[in-house]
Amino acid sequence: MTVLVLTSEEDVTADLVVARLNGSGIPVVRLDPAELPGDVALSGEYVHGAFRGHLSVGGRLVSMGGLRSVWVRRPGVPGARAAEPSGWLTEEASQAFYGMLRGIGARWMNHPDAARRARHKPWQLHLAQRSRLPVPATLITTFPQAARDFSQRYPDLVVKPVSGSHPQEPPRVVPTSRVAPGVDFTAVAFGPTLLQRRVDKRADIRLTAVGPRILAARKAVAPDAHPDDVDVRFAPSDEPWRPVEVPARITEAVHRYLREAELAYGAFDFAEDADGIWWFLECNQSGQFGFIEMDTGQPIAHAVADWLAQESPDDDRSGQAHGPPGCP
Amino acid sequence: MTVLVLTSEEDVTADLVVARLNGSGIPVVRLDPAELPGDVALSGEYVHGAFRGHLSVGGRLVSMGGLRSVWVRRPGVPGARAAEPSGWLTEEASQAFYGMLRGIGARWMNHPDAARRARHKPWQLHLAQRSRLPVPATLITTFPQAARDFSQRYPDLVVKPVSGSHPQEPPRVVPTSRVAPGVDFTAVAFGPTLLQRRVDKRADIRLTAVGPRILAARKAVAPDAHPDDVDVRFAPSDEPWRPVEVPARITEAVHRYLREAELAYGAFDFAEDADGIWWFLECNQSGQFGFIEMDTGQPIAHAVADWLAQESPDDDRSGQAHGPPGCP
Repeated sequence: MTVLVLTSEEDVTADLVVARLNGSGIPVVRLDPAELPGDVALSGEYVHGAFRGHLSVGGRLVSMGGLRSVWVRRPGVPGARAAEPSGWLTEEASQAFYGMLRGIGARWMNHPDAARRARHKPWQLHLAQRSRLPVPATLITTFPQAARDFSQRYPDLVVKPVSGSHPQEPPRVVPTSRVAPGVDFTAVAFGPTLLQRRVDKRADIRLTAVGPRILAARKAVAPDAHPDDVDVRFAPSDEPWRPVEVPARITEAVHRYLREAELAYGAFDFAEDADGIWWFLECNQSGQFGFIEMDTGQPIAHAVADWLAQESPDDDRSGQAHGPPGCP
Repeated sequence: MTVLVLTSEEDVTADLVVARLNGSGIPVVRLDPAELPGDVALSGEYVHGAFRGHLSVGGRLVSMGGLRSVWVRRPGVPGARAAEPSGWLTEEASQAFYGMLRGIGARWMNHPDAARRARHKPWQLHLAQRSRLPVPATLITTFPQAARDFSQRYPDLVVKPVSGSHPQEPPRVVPTSRVAPGVDFTAVAFGPTLLQRRVDKRADIRLTAVGPRILAARKAVAPDAHPDDVDVRFAPSDEPWRPVEVPARITEAVHRYLREAELAYGAFDFAEDADGIWWFLECNQSGQFGFIEMDTGQPIAHAVADWLAQESPDDDRSGQAHGPPGCP
C-alpha cells in the first residue's frame, strides 16, 4: 500500500517525511497536481458497479485502490503547469483528480472537505469554545456600534483578518495588530472586522497535533518586548522555541477539537498569560512545522510519516473501492 | 424560528417557496450574500464560551440562534456588490458570513460542504455505484490508449465535461455530445476527458428529491429523434415532462445516495432504456425544478418550503449555539 504526497517540488519539509517513509520501506508517490495534465496523468473506469483508477507520475503507474493514505501538503492548482492553462482546464483537472481520490477510501491528512471547513475563523472560534478551550473575547462585525460597545467592554484589543492571508500573488500574510485607542470604528461597515481582547502574554505556544500525538513548543516573550508586538510571526525576538508539557485539560480539548473537525493534523496557536492559561488563537490545518522541529528537535516529521504509514485497522475498503456486490 | 433564504433578487423559483412559507406564517429572511457588506450586515460575539450572532437585511435584525434552516439557493458571491469589490473583501466576507452560519446548528438545504463535494462527477459516479444505481460504463482519462481501449469495448460513446459548466461570465453549459466514429483520442492527453457508453434511451427522467420526498418526471424521446441529440437540455422536442412512478429499487437507491452525500435536495438525471432501466447520469445538488413543476404540476416548491419549515425533532442546539457550561 502506497502513500501519496501532494506537494510542490521545492517543499523541503515534505522531503523529511518522504525520507522517513523511504527509510521504513513504505512505497511513496509524490506529485504536484499542477502537473496534471502533463507529467501527471490519470485514468479511472466505472464499469459493472466497480471503480478502478490509476495515477501516473513521470511514467510510474500506481493503482488508486492501492493507496493507503494521502498527504495534502502544499499542492499546486491542477492544470496550472499545462501548456495552455485556463480556468476551464483547472476545473476539469481538479474535479477529475480530487473527484476520483475522494472515492477510494484512503486516509487523508487532511481531507479536502475538513481542510476547507477548518479554515473558517468564526467556525474555529466556535469549535474551540465547544471543545472547552479558553477563547479570548472576540467580535466579528460590520456594525460600527457593535465594535464601539465591544471596545468599551474590552478596551485593549487586537484586529486581525477573518480569512488569513491576502489573496495576492504571492499571498501576503496580514499581521495581527493592536487597535489604537480612540479609534471610532466607522470603517468596519466596509468589511467584516475581527476584534479580539489582547492577551497580555508571557509566551507564545505552538501545539502541533499529528493524529493522536501532541507536541507543544513555547517561545517566551522577551522581558523588554513592546506590547504592540502582538504577532509572533513578526515580532523581533531571539528567544527560541522550546518543548513544553501540555496541560491535561488542553490535551483533552485539542483531541475533542480535532475529532469534531475531522482533522488528522492541526497546528494550534495559543497565547499564554501571566496565570499560565493558554488562550486559543487559531488552528491552522496546514500550519508549517519545520521551524518548530528545527528549534526543539521534536520529531514532527517522523510523527507525520508514521501516521501516513499506518494501515488503518478498521479499514474495510471492499465496499468503497470495488463497489458492493449485486450492482448492475 | 426563521428560515433563511440565500439567493439573488431576481430568483422567481425562490419567490414560490417564500410565498408558501409566508402563507404558513413561517418567518423568512431572504438575502443575497453579494450585498454583504452593504444592505446585509452581520455581527457575532464569542464571549464567555458562548456565541451570539445577528444578521441584518435592509435594517431588519435577526438572531442567528433563531434560524431553523438555511436554503442555499442561488446566492451571489459575498462582497460582490460592495462599492469597492476585491478578492480580499470577498474572502473576508465569505469567511465571516459562512463561518458564523456553519456554527449555529440550523438545518441546511444543502450544507456548503455537502454541496461542494456533490459537484464532483467522479465521486457522483462512485457513490451511484455504491448506492446500487445502474451507471453506464464510464471512463475519465488523460491516457489516449485507455480511451482507445474503452471505445473498442463500448463503440457508441458520448463525451461530457467532468466539471459541468464552463467558467466564463456568464457560465456556459457544455452539452453532452456523441463521439464520432474513428476519433483517435490523442487530445485526451491535454485534459481529463469523460467518456460514457451512450444509453439508447426512450425517455429522459428527472427525479427531484426533497428530504424524504421523491417526485419524478419523464420526457419521452420523440420517435423521429436523431440519435446524436443526446442532451435533453439541447434536443429539440415538443414532448412535455409528465409525472412518473419511481420503481421501488430506485427509491431505495436514491435515499442511500442522499444519505451518504448528506444532501437534503438533489435533482437526479436518468436515461430510461428500451428495457425500462433507469441509468444514472448525474445528481445536481442545486438543479432547477421550476420547469418540471410547470409541466407536471408536481408540488416541488411546496415540498421545499415544508422541509425548510420543519422544526427538527432531534435538534438539540443547546451545546452548539450557546456553548457548553463550564467554559472559561
